[in-house]
Formats: sequence, structure tokens, C-alpha cells
Amino acid sequence: MPNVPVHLIPAARGIEPADIVYRNARVFNAFACDWERSDLAVKDGIVVGIGTEYQGEQERDLEGAYIVPGLIDAHVHIESSLLTPLEYARLVALHGTTTVIADPHEIANVSGAAGLEFMLSCRRGAPVDIRYMLPSCVPATPMDVGGATLGAADLGIFIGRDGIVGLGEMMNVPGVLAGDPYVMEKLALTPIRDGHAPLLSSADLNAYVLSGLQSDHECTTRAEAEEKLRRGMYIYIREGSTEQNIAELIPLVTPANVSRFCFATDDCHADLLERDGHIDRCIRKAVACGCVPELAIRMATLSAAERFGLSDRGALAPGRRADFCVVDNPENFIVRETVRSNNRSDTMSMSISRQLPVPAPTITFHCTTPTLKEIRIVGDGLARVIGLVPRQIITESLRYEITETGIPDIRRDILKIVVCNRYHDHRIGVGLVHGFGFKEGAIASSVSHDAHNIVAVGASDAEILTAIGAVIRSQGGMVVVQGQSETILPLDCAGLMSILPYREVVTRLSTLDVTTRILGGIDNPFMYLSFLALTVIPAIRVTNRGMFDVTVFKDVPLFE
Amino acid sequence: MPNVPVHLIPAARGIEPADIVYRNARVFNAFACDWERSDLAVKDGIVVGIGTEYQGEQERDLEGAYIVPGLIDAHVHIESSLLTPLEYARLVALHGTTTVIADPHEIANVSGAAGLEFMLSCRRGAPVDIRYMLPSCVPATPMDVGGATLGAADLGIFIGRDGIVGLGEMMNVPGVLAGDPYVMEKLALTPIRDGHAPLLSSADLNAYVLSGLQSDHECTTRAEAEEKLRRGMYIYIREGSTEQNIAELIPLVTPANVSRFCFATDDCHADLLERDGHIDRCIRKAVACGCVPELAIRMATLSAAERFGLSDRGALAPGRRADFCVVDNPENFIVRETVRSNNRSDTMSMSISRQLPVPAPTITFHCTTPTLKEIRIVGDGLARVIGLVPRQIITESLRYEITETGIPDIRRDILKIVVCNRYHDHRIGVGLVHGFGFKEGAIASSVSHDAHNIVAVGASDAEILTAIGAVIRSQGGMVVVQGQSETILPLDCAGLMSILPYREVVTRLSTLDVTTRILGGIDNPFMYLSFLALTVIPAIRVTNRGMFDVTVFKDVPLFE
Repeated sequence: MPNVPVHLIPAARGIEPADIVYRNARVFNAFACDWERSDLAVKDGIVVGIGTEYQGEQERDLEGAYIVPGLIDAHVHIESSLLTPLEYARLVALHGTTTVIADPHEIANVSGAAGLEFMLSCRRGAPVDIRYMLPSCVPATPMDVGGATLGAADLGIFIGRDGIVGLGEMMNVPGVLAGDPYVMEKLALTPIRDGHAPLLSSADLNAYVLSGLQSDHECTTRAEAEEKLRRGMYIYIREGSTEQNIAELIPLVTPANVSRFCFATDDCHADLLERDGHIDRCIRKAVACGCVPELAIRMATLSAAERFGLSDRGALAPGRRADFCVVDNPENFIVRETVRSNNRSDTMSMSISRQLPVPAPTITFHCTTPTLKEIRIVGDGLARVIGLVPRQIITESLRYEITETGIPDIRRDILKIVVCNRYHDHRIGVGLVHGFGFKEGAIASSVSHDAHNIVAVGASDAEILTAIGAVIRSQGGMVVVQGQSETILPLDCAGLMSILPYREVVTRLSTLDVTTRILGGIDNPFMYLSFLALTVIPAIRVTNRGMFDVTVFKDVPLFE
Repeated sequence: MPNVPVHLIPAARGIEPADIVYRNARVFNAFACDWERSDLAVKDGIVVGIGTEYQGEQERDLEGAYIVPGLIDAHVHIESSLLTPLEYARLVALHGTTTVIADPHEIANVSGAAGLEFMLSCRRGAPVDIRYMLPSCVPATPMDVGGATLGAADLGIFIGRDGIVGLGEMMNVPGVLAGDPYVMEKLALTPIRDGHAPLLSSADLNAYVLSGLQSDHECTTRAEAEEKLRRGMYIYIREGSTEQNIAELIPLVTPANVSRFCFATDDCHADLLERDGHIDRCIRKAVACGCVPELAIRMATLSAAERFGLSDRGALAPGRRADFCVVDNPENFIVRETVRSNNRSDTMSMSISRQLPVPAPTITFHCTTPTLKEIRIVGDGLARVIGLVPRQIITESLRYEITETGIPDIRRDILKIVVCNRYHDHRIGVGLVHGFGFKEGAIASSVSHDAHNIVAVGASDAEILTAIGAVIRSQGGMVVVQGQSETILPLDCAGLMSILPYREVVTRLSTLDVTTRILGGIDNPFMYLSFLALTVIPAIRVTNRGMFDVTVFKDVPLFE
């Protein structure tokens, strides 16, 4: 009888003492969406009682502090933090997070099922409950082959495993709309399925929802989010490092629809998490944008738990996990402390079945540095240029008159961008991008959604090639090159994550940041760079085959 | 791939025509909790699109009418209608209901697993989707043995069967609080479990919730419902024939907590359903009591669907059932028409696997009429008297000075009540009741929760015995006796339900009603009578062993 905690009934009745009673708290009641002055009695990491009649082996006076159920991130790629899952969990736990629903599709694109096994093995002992959605689109499109291909049969092996919640963001919208059997087989694996359908609307949105995709975290306008809400999608309002949608979308949230909204961070570098926080940051931003604190907290707790059918959390109520965070007040939402369920059965199962963690994939680069000739632009005329959009993941498809020798065009901020296959030597993709601001130097990275080839942008071909070479030499990393000088954050785990402690990663990111600013770059250049090969987000991208127009979903020449 | 409706994608995209397009509707949007002017495109009984871009093989102009997703009753005992499930469904379908979550615990108490098989077999072809919760308390208490005992092993056989949702109302609160293994085994059968805990509060309520009971439909005061809501229970606001809680509880419902509230009718006779309606009646009553119509409709649709994990209904959105009702306006909520999903796959599976319905249990009475001596009151003094509470299922425990020859006491409205075991000859229980109002005559019934023995109340011993004799002779029924004259509604299906069409049952109920009024009786005397042997609802009851004090949970003598 695993699901009936019979042994806790006497403590819940107050006949036996609890392990600990937190006295004098202002407890967020997620069901009523308000605050309740009460004590909280906990035994074996489970809430046994709310009320004032409990005694505990230990007691602690919270002196009227506000306590909130553990925060939940509804959709995140842990790899984007550049941290391994355990370090990631250590960092976000400080910010009140106790559960993340992660889609490990970055490492899956690089290392396939072995990458998933590695991520699953990292759940043990983590101070946050990491649950995974199975990556539905590896590779992101049939054209974007990275290090692995995962079909329904490959994913099916993971169904029913501890820690697997459902199917992750289905980015193959054309495949869904065409009823592609390869896609449909994946949808049929599990009843919980996240969507990903930027700008989809009207009849095609209806068809996408009908196919069983239940959520979207790609809304960038209020009208888009409202339409998706009305068609039955859960809306995850995303606030990542460079994908910031709270300000635009939060006015949509009302008491009557708050159960359909969650927060998601999607992609956040470790430095942002360390400095600004995680879901606590989303709550603060929402409140700053006019949202009632209680609605924002409801989104981050019960709404997310309900969406994923996690009935053991999302609220501080009898039988649920005693995961909570202590905040000074709901308005500023500064997390003073995170208290996590310490379920005895968790501990027991860990000690019984402790396994060695699955080794991290390390050697994933099998390519050589391109030559100058391979990255040369040949031709003149009206060229397609990727336009960065500040704080958004979408890009604009721009047009500029370009000459063969006119790049870099520092005055118009048009730079060369190069994508180089990491898995084997292959064609080199060369494109143009507007918005990075570099006056000199180059940056390169092995984080390049979703195939995670090497992507580089810079003000000179020589520096671009030096940067790419450094990434290959380190078997992954983020590199800034200025002349002969290299600054690098090695990403030794699949070329995506660092094996260093999070504090060290934050320090190194800060060094990269300082260095890119010296070159004239915008904030977060690596985050913007990482999305420029992602062919499932409008409007225009670059791959190792060259420019790619997402709206028509095909490779296009640089010059019109 | 049963759960991905690939074949409907082209219709959802508007590339192929829908079967039917309802034009020009005001569609209730359950996610936004408001109305949306739109067309609704349906194919194979599934909503394929909301919008104005659809063409259909058929089209129908709704001329601006309001349409609402099919209404859901979160908790009902179909047997209480006195109709078989098919007739019940025909009746409530007229009132906008398309799904009922029924607990067949009346017939289970009489006929055990055979009764459940009969009820399950009645789902086929019904115009309402009937889903069942497995009766958790058969018998209601170890003392109240009726025709069957169902342990976890007996119930376990039904888990996973089509139409089974979870475990029905767990009325054995003491068993839960004691951690009784017999009860715990039942809780461990399924993750969806309805509670039943009238007046439970504080630490014992915490223990009950901790044990995994997720709902309550027994709240009679706002304070009780608020406490249960805050501890994480879904609150089903009940409005039955004689259990009317909307007026008291509806002020608790707000936009921020509406997702945690549903409506339940629990026990309604066919005549009330025919005259006043079903869940539509609950919505009207809620609105009359000051509730915003949209909140009441949300309770009756999406909130109920979400509570039971029925993601294919509760809203009119792509991929969900095209079950809806047409109403003139949200305020008066008169259901003009009910449109039900006509899913091709339903039809197919019915024609493929059509089975003969399981025969109804008919011979269930194995007792003889008591003698005058057996129902005589012996003694004088201060006696316990059951006090009816108008429109409530709870009773008051009253005390009156009584003499052996002083009953009936028409002036003080104190009558004799008799309970007679239907399954075999046994002790006859005799008690006293205040509140029926009869000046003469007697009534008897084989509907007597939950053991469904024969219960009778009357102004003379002779008439009481005549009434009991008539019930036995008919193998079940509701009988009114005035002198030698008998008026009877035979309940030939397990002594609980009539096999007649609902219109005929309503007519006969109306005759009973007229007859009982002539005797001076209150409204709905049979409904009140049916609960007076129910030992799980405070405060005092009568069984075939005599008076029963629910607060101390034991048999008590008539005289103090």
C-alpha cells in the first residue's frame, strides 16, 4: 500500500508528536489563494497537519514569516544553465524551487539515450525533485541531424521509469499538422504532452490542440496567449535569460484562469540564476508588472502541480510534501530559506539501490576547424540577415545590400555567423546577423540549439576560426577571442555543461561577460547565439547548411 | 494509437469539411470563464474547431444562442432516482447533463458484485456517459450488514474496467482514522477517491485528508466547507431532494477557487429531476443565491472534468467531446436542447461487442412481516427521538417524555418508526421520530440507506405492518397505507429501482405524494425516511437493532 501513509495518521490526528512543528507562520493556501495564520506540522517530510493543536519533537518559531509551497518550474532545459543537474539543483534550491520539469533535449541531441540516462542518474541526491519530459524532437527537424535520432521506440523504453512525466515540447508543428506517423507514434506514448507552437493560430492551432498537445511556452503576445488559453492549452509564461514574456503576458492572468497558467524559465544561464533567481524572479517580475502576488504564487505552485498531475505537491496540505520556502513578504518575494521534504522512503530507497552515476558523455567532437576559404562569402546584392530581437527568442528576417568584401560591417552592425558540424566534417554554414554589436573579436560556442553544432560570430574571419578551434580543442565550451587571446568556459559534459561547481561557472561566465563587453557586444551574446541555429522558431536562422527560412521551412541562399 | 485522433486533423485544419458546423453561437469558454461568439465545428462527435473558418456537411444556425459544455454531476446515486440507469440517463439528458459520476452503493449493498455488473451493463446505449466510483463502504459499517459485503479484493476485480473512475465516498471515518487495514486496502486500490466526512474538522480532518480522501459532498455550513477546501478537498456542493446545501455554501465560491468546487445531486427522486431539473437546477439555484452564472457553469463543467481527470470533456475545445447544451441565457439557464457526442468509435465498439444486458437482481426479500408484539414500545420516560431537519440529511437528537401508550403523539408530531431486515428474519428495530407530520396512515419503503432494509413510519401500528407487508409482497417498493387502502410504487429492481419508464415513475410518485399529503405529511417523506437508518450521518438514526447514536457510533436504548 505505497500510496496511503498509514504510519502518519496518528501524527496527523495529534495523538503522536510530529517530527517538527513550524509555529506562527503565514501559510499560503493555494486552494483559497490567500494566507492563513497557522502552525505547520511535518513528519517524515510530509505535511501532517495545519492548525494550532500539534506538538513536535522539534519546534521552530517562524515569527509570522510567510511560507509558500515549493516553487515549480514547468519547463526548463537544465543544460542551458551550463551546469550539471546536481549543481543546477543546488543553485535553484536556494531560490525556493523544489521541483523542475526538465526537458533534456539538448543532451539528447548530442548523445541520445545515453544522455538521457546520464540526466536521470543525476536525480539522486539532488536537493530539488527533477522530473523529465522525454525530448520529442531529436533532431529538431529531419534536416537538423545532430548526434542522435530518437524515434518513438527509443523514447518508449523510458516510459514508466521513475522521474519521467510525459513527452516534451513537440516542436515539429508541420509534422503534427500533416499527421506524420513518425510524430503521431510519439504523441501516443503518454497522456501528458507539452506543446511548442510559436505564432500558431486559428485552424492550425485547433488541429495542433486536437492532436493532444496541451501546453505552450512560446507565446510572445497577449493575443497569442489568449487564443491558446481559450483553446485549452496551459500557458507557461516564460522568462529566460533572453526570452522574456512576463511583462507582455501577465496582464492576461485573472483569478478565474490562473489554474491554466504556470511559469517556465526554459533557458537561463547560471549567472542569471545566481544573481536574479529562478521562479522567485518570475514572481517578482510578475508582481512588478502589476500581478497580485497570490496569483503569481498560485501559478508557481498548485497550477503547475495540477498541470502535471503531481498531487503530492503544489500546496501545503495534509499528505503533501513539506516542501516550502520562507519569504519576508509576498510583494518583494525574497526567499530567505528553502525547506525540502526529507521523505524517509526516499532516503531508504536511495540507500538500498544506490548506483554509481552514469558517466557523463565527454568526447562528442569529431570535426576539424574550417579553413578561411570555407567561411568566405561569395557574391554581392540584397542579402538575408538575421535580426536579433532584444529579450526574445524569435528573430526578424532583414534584408541588406551586401558586398563580398563589406563584411564585417561594423557601422550597420552586420557580422558573419558560422555554423560548423561538430559530429563529423561537413559543409560549413555561413550567414549574416544584425544586433550583436561587436566592434572586434569573435565568440564561439558548442551550445547551439538543438543539434549543438559549433556556432560562432565575429568581426574577423581569423578570430572566428580561432574561436571555433578552441571549442573543438576543449571538446566543448564558450570562447571569446580577441586577437590571439582566448577566454574560455569549458563545457566538458557533452559540450553543453560544465562539470565545475556552480559558483565557479558563474565566475567564469562573468569573465566571459566582461570580455564580450570590451568587444562592444550586447548583454547575453552567448544566449542569443545559442538560438540562431534553431530552425523551429521564426523567422530566419542559420545552420551548417547556410541560411534557413523558418516561415517556409527550408534552406535559402544568403543572397536573394 | 487510440488517443491521437489523426483522422480528424484535416477537418480541424479546415482542409476537409466537418460533419456539422454550429454557426453563430455564444460558446462558454471554460478556460477563460467567459463567452466567445464563434462557430463550432464537429466531426465524429469531437470538437474539431472553434472559429469562423469552417465548412460542414451540415450547418446549423444557432442564432446567437448560448452553448455550454455538457453538464457533469460529480456524485450521485442513480438508484435514489428510483429509475434504472438507462431511464435515469434519458431523463437527465433532457436537462443538459452528459456525464454523471455515480456511486452504485445502494444496489451493491443489496446485491454485491452482481449489482455492480448490472449497473455497468446499463452504460451501453445510455444518452449520458455514466461513470462509476466503486462503493467503498458495503456495508456502511460493520454493524449494518445488508445483502453483501465488499472487501478490497471484491472491488479490485473492477479496477481498470471501462467506466470505473475510482473509489466512492469513504464513509467509514473511524476506520480511516484508526488506520484499519481493511479500509486502507481499499484506499490503495486507486488514486481517485471520494470522501464523505460530515462535520469532520481540525486534526481528524487533517488525518482523513492525509489518508488520501480528496473530496467531500457532506458540508452543511460555510465554515465546514471552507476548512475542507483549505485542506485540499474538492467540495461538491450538494443539492438533492432533501439535502440542499447551495444556499449556504455558494457564497464561498470565488473565481480564484472555483476550480475546486463541483455540483453533486447525491439523491434525487425522479419527480424532482423531471420537474426541477438536474445540474441545470443547481446552476439556477446558485445564480438565484447570488453566484455569477459563469462560475456556476465552470463548476458544472471544467471543474468536475478536471477533478476526475476526464480531459476529453468539461470544455468545448479541439479534441474534446462535442457534448453541449443550448440555453436561452446564462441567468435563467433553461436548457433548450442537449447535444451529445456521437463518437464513431463508441458506436463501433458497441456494435462489435454488443452483449446482452446483465439481468437485474429481482428476488431480494427473504423476510416476513413483523407482528404487532414485535413493534410494541415497552417502557416510559425520557426517550431519544430522531428530529428531522428540513432540507438536510443530518438529524437532531431530541428528547421527549414518552409513555408506553402515548405513541403516536400527533400533537407533538412524534411517530413510531420501524426497521425490518429484508434479507432474513431478524430483530425488529423500533424508534421514534419527530417531523413527518402524519396525522394518520403509514408509509414504508425498501429504499433505506445503506442496507436497504424495510423502513416504515406511521400513525398506527396496524397501518405500519400493512405497509411493510405490501413492500415484502412486491419484492420492494414505496407504499402509502390509509386504513386498508394501499398505494404503491413497485421497485422491482433490487427493491431500489423501478423498471418502468421515467414518465410512469414520475406519475406514480406524484400519486404517492398526493396521498401522503392527505395524511398530513411533509414534502418528500420517502426521501427523509430513506436516510433514517443511515448510521454514518449525525446525529441519531434507527436500524433493525433499534436506536443508533452516530456521535458515539453505537446502539443506544430508546429510553435514556
